[in-house]
Amino acid sequence: MYAELPDSLVTANTTKILFLILDGLGGLAIDEFGGTELQVACCPHLDSLATQASCGLMTPIAPGITPGSGPGHFGVFGYDPVKTNIGRGVQEAAGIGFSLKGSDVAARFNFATVDREGRVIDRRAGRISTEENIRLCNLMRQAIHLGGVEVFIEPVKEHRGVVVFRGEGLSGEVEDTDPQKEGLKPLDPVAAVPEAARTAALAREFIDQARIVLADEPRANMLLFRGFAKNTGFPSMKERFGLNAVAIATYPMYKGIAQLLSMSVIPDLKNFEEEVEALKKYYDQYDFFFVHFKYTDSRGEDGNFPEKVKAIESVDALLPEILSLPFDVVVVSGDHSTPAKMASHSWHELPVLLRASNCRVDTVTRFDELSCIHGSLGRFLSKDLMSLALAHAGRLEKFGA
Amino acid sequence: MYAELPDSLVTANTTKILFLILDGLGGLAIDEFGGTELQVACCPHLDSLATQASCGLMTPIAPGITPGSGPGHFGVFGYDPVKTNIGRGVQEAAGIGFSLKGSDVAARFNFATVDREGRVIDRRAGRISTEENIRLCNLMRQAIHLGGVEVFIEPVKEHRGVVVFRGEGLSGEVEDTDPQKEGLKPLDPVAAVPEAARTAALAREFIDQARIVLADEPRANMLLFRGFAKNTGFPSMKERFGLNAVAIATYPMYKGIAQLLSMSVIPDLKNFEEEVEALKKYYDQYDFFFVHFKYTDSRGEDGNFPEKVKAIESVDALLPEILSLPFDVVVVSGDHSTPAKMASHSWHELPVLLRASNCRVDTVTRFDELSCIHGSLGRFLSKDLMSLALAHAGRLEKFGA
Repeated sequence: MYAELPDSLVTANTTKILFLILDGLGGLAIDEFGGTELQVACCPHLDSLATQASCGLMTPIAPGITPGSGPGHFGVFGYDPVKTNIGRGVQEAAGIGFSLKGSDVAARFNFATVDREGRVIDRRAGRISTEENIRLCNLMRQAIHLGGVEVFIEPVKEHRGVVVFRGEGLSGEVEDTDPQKEGLKPLDPVAAVPEAARTAALAREFIDQARIVLADEPRANMLLFRGFAKNTGFPSMKERFGLNAVAIATYPMYKGIAQLLSMSVIPDLKNFEEEVEALKKYYDQYDFFFVHFKYTDSRGEDGNFPEKVKAIESVDALLPEILSLPFDVVVVSGDHSTPAKMASHSWHELPVLLRASNCRVDTVTRFDELSCIHGSLGRFLSKDLMSLALAHAGRLEKFGA
Repeated sequence: MYAELPDSLVTANTTKILFLILDGLGGLAIDEFGGTELQVACCPHLDSLATQASCGLMTPIAPGITPGSGPGHFGVFGYDPVKTNIGRGVQEAAGIGFSLKGSDVAARFNFATVDREGRVIDRRAGRISTEENIRLCNLMRQAIHLGGVEVFIEPVKEHRGVVVFRGEGLSGEVEDTDPQKEGLKPLDPVAAVPEAARTAALAREFIDQARIVLADEPRANMLLFRGFAKNTGFPSMKERFGLNAVAIATYPMYKGIAQLLSMSVIPDLKNFEEEVEALKKYYDQYDFFFVHFKYTDSRGEDGNFPEKVKAIESVDALLPEILSLPFDVVVVSGDHSTPAKMASHSWHELPVLLRASNCRVDTVTRFDELSCIHGSLGRFLSKDLMSLALAHAGRLEKFGA
């Protein structure tokens, strides 16, 4: 899968690469605001950086395809997001810092409330507290035992958790049990392929035992599986690109994705200011820095245009501090668009800028969706971003003589 | 490899296509000169052509990948440069007009100087003269005999030569013996895959015999192999595209690449003026003309910005003469960028223009890296250039009904 380009051309260097990823960065214009979130935001530092950079438009997966967080980030890191689509269960397990091994199968679950007939009346069990979740997970850990496999039961937040099945011959090809609508009974964990029959049977057995453990709970008396996935093992960024990579992020999901690629992860960061401090603190120790900013996506998901604008501006305000560190290559972009107008992830292209001493500076002087169309990078797939960064960092040899 | 597009759609026509390839055309701005080489160059004829043409940006291999001359040209001729990566040995042999057969294995070598302990003290044997090279090759031809294979020993220029091994079951997967640094002993020709064991053994035997022949030479007393490669046989442009193609070039390398694709090669051209004369002379005999201009790359490699500008201008000056011939499709571009700023090949996109009666003329009026961003061809991979040329030449049928 990673046989040829750029992997086979990687050469050692001491250059440092920064990927500043504003989650859900791309937007859409709303008439009353007079442009897209980026167009409306006052970002003198991003604009100044664009003026010194090569700009372009980045398509996360393929035109028209809206990425989830996993594929969005995998693409940005040079892992073909179509070939390496990772299951949500694996992402979630990695996101809470669970060390997945070899061929573990992970599945997300929700605690839910069912009525006496077993119909789901609340798919989130009234959003029980995380403490309640932890108590219930402990109960299940004591009571649930499956033949032939190890089982790990991990609380996430509120009503959400992860189960990891560890053993030989497991498969992630098991259907969700969440019926997606209240009033329906949970679905059976069905094997989507014949090889998944045993894993499906284990999931069924798990649910049966959990139902007994949870029988007397007033709210969380059932669980619903969503997103079985097998850990297929990803080659690290060190193996592929020779990069000592570090992830500087606050949210578990993004730390988890970084961990799947064997990046180091700085723990316990609470906000973007702390991320910038961490960047300075660890500048000497790494050569690839993934700095993740979450709130552009969150505010986009909220459909809150003015707050997404403010989120962008808050990053811009810290940009001089970030750029006071001498990175050889600076990339600013996102993992996908989250236009406030749509209040969801979308397929729209992302603006991207890349600054390096040997980049082809173009005529773009504003960092936004429409200006970057005129950039020298043109439109490209996010999976090619890493090649561009490595090239500008002097980390790729010539292809062929 | 060439099953589908455009090959399966090729239809006969009498139209004529010109590819004017300025080697290493793309550049980077240097502040003191006020732009890129193309932006600074005064090119009224290229600009006028751009005004009548479709323009765009061409990525040679993939974003961020710097091509060697072989892959760079293969892409331009519609041969996927990733799938058809050819070894330097094969290129070099073809480049000196050696007719490679079936499954020949070719390897480049340098004459070198070793001390009494066998350590390399000059990897180029003091750049001996070509005459000296020819004399030594003749000595080796008389003395060296390998069991079971034919061997051809060909001088190139100065200290460089090519050995071609002809026989059954040979492999190009043999490692270089050039240690790349002086003070080290030559490496052993190691088989990179088990199937190459015999070829590696033949190479070792060759070196052992050569060492004896060269023992008393004051400078060229050893040889170092660089770039073993097997001739895998490429389908000709006639087979693939129905084109009677001719290469009009001065440098062996480019004539060699053309020969690998079974283009006719006009011999003994000394400069670009002679190339233009040859173009006129052979206009009636061919329908695809590859005209190669070397000096944009040479001056770029030298890091000489003003001279690269002059090289571009010298082509522009002859453009009216070239365009006095009625080509149905005129393409001007390069095989890769060679910015004087970097004094090397680079990954940066190339400007490209295509003029034909049915091209979509855009608003681009300057032929340079930044103007062509706005062209109607957008950004595309060089391997698609040939399809565009064939289409505009009325040489491709509709795909599907």
